[in-house]
Amino acid sequence: MTEQNLTMLCDFYELTMGNGYFQAGMRDRVTYFDVFFRDVPDKGGFAICAGLGQLIDYIQNLHFNQEDIEYLRGRGLFSEEFLEYLSTFRFTGDIWAVPEGTPIFPREPVVTVRAPAIQAQLIETFTLLTMNHQSLIATKANRIVRAAQGRTVLEFGSRRAQGIDGAVSGARAAFIGGCKGTACTLSDQIYGVPAGGTMAHAWVQMFDSQYEAFKTYCEIYPTNATLLVDTYNTLKSGVPDAIRAFNEVLKPRGITRCGIRLDSGDLAYLTREARKMLDEAGWTECQISASNALDEYIIRDLLQQGAKVDLFGVGERMITASSQPVFGGVYKLVAVEDGRGRVLPKIKVSENVDKITDPHFKTLYRIYDKATGKAEADYITVHDEAVDAAQPLELFDPRATWKRKTYTNYTIRPLQVQVFRGGELVYTQPPLREIQAYCMEQVDTLWEEVKRFENPHGYYVDLSQKLWDIKQQLLRESRP
Amino acid sequence: MTEQNLTMLCDFYELTMGNGYFQAGMRDRVTYFDVFFRDVPDKGGFAICAGLGQLIDYIQNLHFNQEDIEYLRGRGLFSEEFLEYLSTFRFTGDIWAVPEGTPIFPREPVVTVRAPAIQAQLIETFTLLTMNHQSLIATKANRIVRAAQGRTVLEFGSRRAQGIDGAVSGARAAFIGGCKGTACTLSDQIYGVPAGGTMAHAWVQMFDSQYEAFKTYCEIYPTNATLLVDTYNTLKSGVPDAIRAFNEVLKPRGITRCGIRLDSGDLAYLTREARKMLDEAGWTECQISASNALDEYIIRDLLQQGAKVDLFGVGERMITASSQPVFGGVYKLVAVEDGRGRVLPKIKVSENVDKITDPHFKTLYRIYDKATGKAEADYITVHDEAVDAAQPLELFDPRATWKRKTYTNYTIRPLQVQVFRGGELVYTQPPLREIQAYCMEQVDTLWEEVKRFENPHGYYVDLSQKLWDIKQQLLRESRP
Repeated sequence: MTEQNLTMLCDFYELTMGNGYFQAGMRDRVTYFDVFFRDVPDKGGFAICAGLGQLIDYIQNLHFNQEDIEYLRGRGLFSEEFLEYLSTFRFTGDIWAVPEGTPIFPREPVVTVRAPAIQAQLIETFTLLTMNHQSLIATKANRIVRAAQGRTVLEFGSRRAQGIDGAVSGARAAFIGGCKGTACTLSDQIYGVPAGGTMAHAWVQMFDSQYEAFKTYCEIYPTNATLLVDTYNTLKSGVPDAIRAFNEVLKPRGITRCGIRLDSGDLAYLTREARKMLDEAGWTECQISASNALDEYIIRDLLQQGAKVDLFGVGERMITASSQPVFGGVYKLVAVEDGRGRVLPKIKVSENVDKITDPHFKTLYRIYDKATGKAEADYITVHDEAVDAAQPLELFDPRATWKRKTYTNYTIRPLQVQVFRGGELVYTQPPLREIQAYCMEQVDTLWEEVKRFENPHGYYVDLSQKLWDIKQQLLRESRP
Repeated sequence: MTEQNLTMLCDFYELTMGNGYFQAGMRDRVTYFDVFFRDVPDKGGFAICAGLGQLIDYIQNLHFNQEDIEYLRGRGLFSEEFLEYLSTFRFTGDIWAVPEGTPIFPREPVVTVRAPAIQAQLIETFTLLTMNHQSLIATKANRIVRAAQGRTVLEFGSRRAQGIDGAVSGARAAFIGGCKGTACTLSDQIYGVPAGGTMAHAWVQMFDSQYEAFKTYCEIYPTNATLLVDTYNTLKSGVPDAIRAFNEVLKPRGITRCGIRLDSGDLAYLTREARKMLDEAGWTECQISASNALDEYIIRDLLQQGAKVDLFGVGERMITASSQPVFGGVYKLVAVEDGRGRVLPKIKVSENVDKITDPHFKTLYRIYDKATGKAEADYITVHDEAVDAAQPLELFDPRATWKRKTYTNYTIRPLQVQVFRGGELVYTQPPLREIQAYCMEQVDTLWEEVKRFENPHGYYVDLSQKLWDIKQQLLRESRP
């Protein structure tokens, strides 16, 4: 799966434009494109960046095989010279990206591509697809994990995912966002997202009695016995049958760790009652798992109502981010080179002010307060600007320039890392567990006000004076 | 892509249960599972069935390779006998399914699986994943296509899709639902969904002037020139520059077919004005494409406001079905065989009445009125019941049994076809275009009242008296 050739997973216009650039003598024109997004899903205060791992796989496998060329020839739109060019095509450009797991904010360059026009244009669709999809799920998962206040959250949504990769990469993204594991076996095998699971209702129905189903399961999996107790009636028979099976099979072996799972009914009431029954029977270490149409809001409510849940299994609402299932990342031309290596900024104007792009090849920084360690603002400069962290730094709101704030006691770090240089991979992806740990640590640097689910505080993403001046000048020069 | 081994795309519990059935001596126990759904997305009156093509590919490629076995062995949960069994595992059961493109309704068996317990359980996740995902998108696409009232709808959403397969299979499902094509090149290459496209804003920005960008494009693609006219200002420069390029490049060649595309602004106003300008300039055959956050409601409103649009390009709201991005198909045990070939019905009870399953191995029929050709009701019987279409047929509402209706002048046809028999594929999938044509034809058999977007008429899905009686009996016998 990590070695699929997804070169043809492009919008067809990338090929017609590619052939056009080729025909118009612009094939070697060096271009810069930024990936950025405009709004945080669910009106949240920040998003979690993810998808770079699959972008790296894609770029490394990028090539047109003979079948692809034949398909394109059959379309009757492309010149033989262009098809010839595609047959030896590979990516020779540079890519910078914000590492996976980083909290990101609207309007900042999450990925920057510098490459000849045809190449940069061709990778648009897949770059957006992977960054949009995985950032969407990582962001949603992080909200749900934060709602669970330290309790374990597991990803259970494969069957409702939007396609194969929706399930497999989705489980990966959910892990980055803080889930402890998944039900998706393939995601474990490919990406190392810990997969687990025990039984469905069908297991219970297959036996002559629920007790027999539970007992058999405990005998086969004495150290992994989580019993689904809601097939018939959770409190009248489910929990009692589970306790009986634990007593009969696990107790004699000295096993105290076990679990029950509830997948229906009023989870607040049922888990409180089940907890009492388990504790009274001496199964104080028995963990209670709950699932069934959960999301961050329901988990928050359940905990406020005193639900006794140790693990939340979250399905469709996480794996599809159902409350807002689109992450609106875009891919916009921000600069071209003039043939002598000079970078000329480009802007996309729009009657909708929010849709005007920030031009130029840029550097993205994050500013942390030295005293608290908290992230205070992000700061975007032109690529060749120097920042001296020993000097005070005055930031201003790019849309309300009289709003200004000066930082004195701060550290500053660039957020993007170089991933490809001249087509060569120059970045080592950390193991997935490290990405998750980094994500948790970076989310901790955000103020609680930014992390609030409702009406979060707007985090500052400001432009340097130089960049702001260039943008204004381009706007003045732009066509009617 | 059609030959991927997705055997490990299962929920882990299917493997723990599989090993459990194996250990408990139940590996050869023949089980029946139904796939059905409970609610139509977007409160619609019906859904469109899709996903069978990928289910067939999956079943045919189903096997555990050595890597898979090693991974499972490494988990330390499975017996060596079970791993040995998996190493020669293949699907040997029967599958019946409603053909792709068929309108389907809540509670009816869309797919029925008859197989030994381990096999039937293992395929649960992928079966649901493919049927849920593609039915979701086909259903949404069909709504959007119907809103466009005969105008062309194209699928443009790859970049916002939930993963690779979300884009590629999503475009396939959208085509089944009635879209005429896609922007996704790979979906054309794999499934034959016609892919097309011309230019992005970056093309226009790459040239010194918009006119030059348009002229160059027309020269390279004189017979495929759809120009994106909203980069700077649609009416002041976009449409005039396009007309100038058409006049200069296409007119001398006698080409009258061309297009413009708008991706922003007020599409009702702008397309009306653009149409006037094009017509006045003699480009009456120039087609107007519109895109930008479209769905069935916006398209309906645009047309009511007199928008002049020939093609709608629909992106994120179709490819993610964003208004309700989950199709809630479930996979439930409905029967087991007793070892002597006798089929014993099983029921899943629930305190939530809507979640009680319809037991047994069943046959699903659709009843059409002979006079009008319209679909009147669906009718579910026990598998071995005979239906004599020469006799009047009395149906009753299974939840309000006093509501009865007798059909006399009707035709009746079974909706499921057998797809696998004893593990062998016995069904030939029609070409994708035929599936689309069948879908359009079958949607036409539905009354307008069922097709309404808001408060559609509830279509009847009724049980035979025999099936209803068995269900009542099982409910009476069910545990407390």
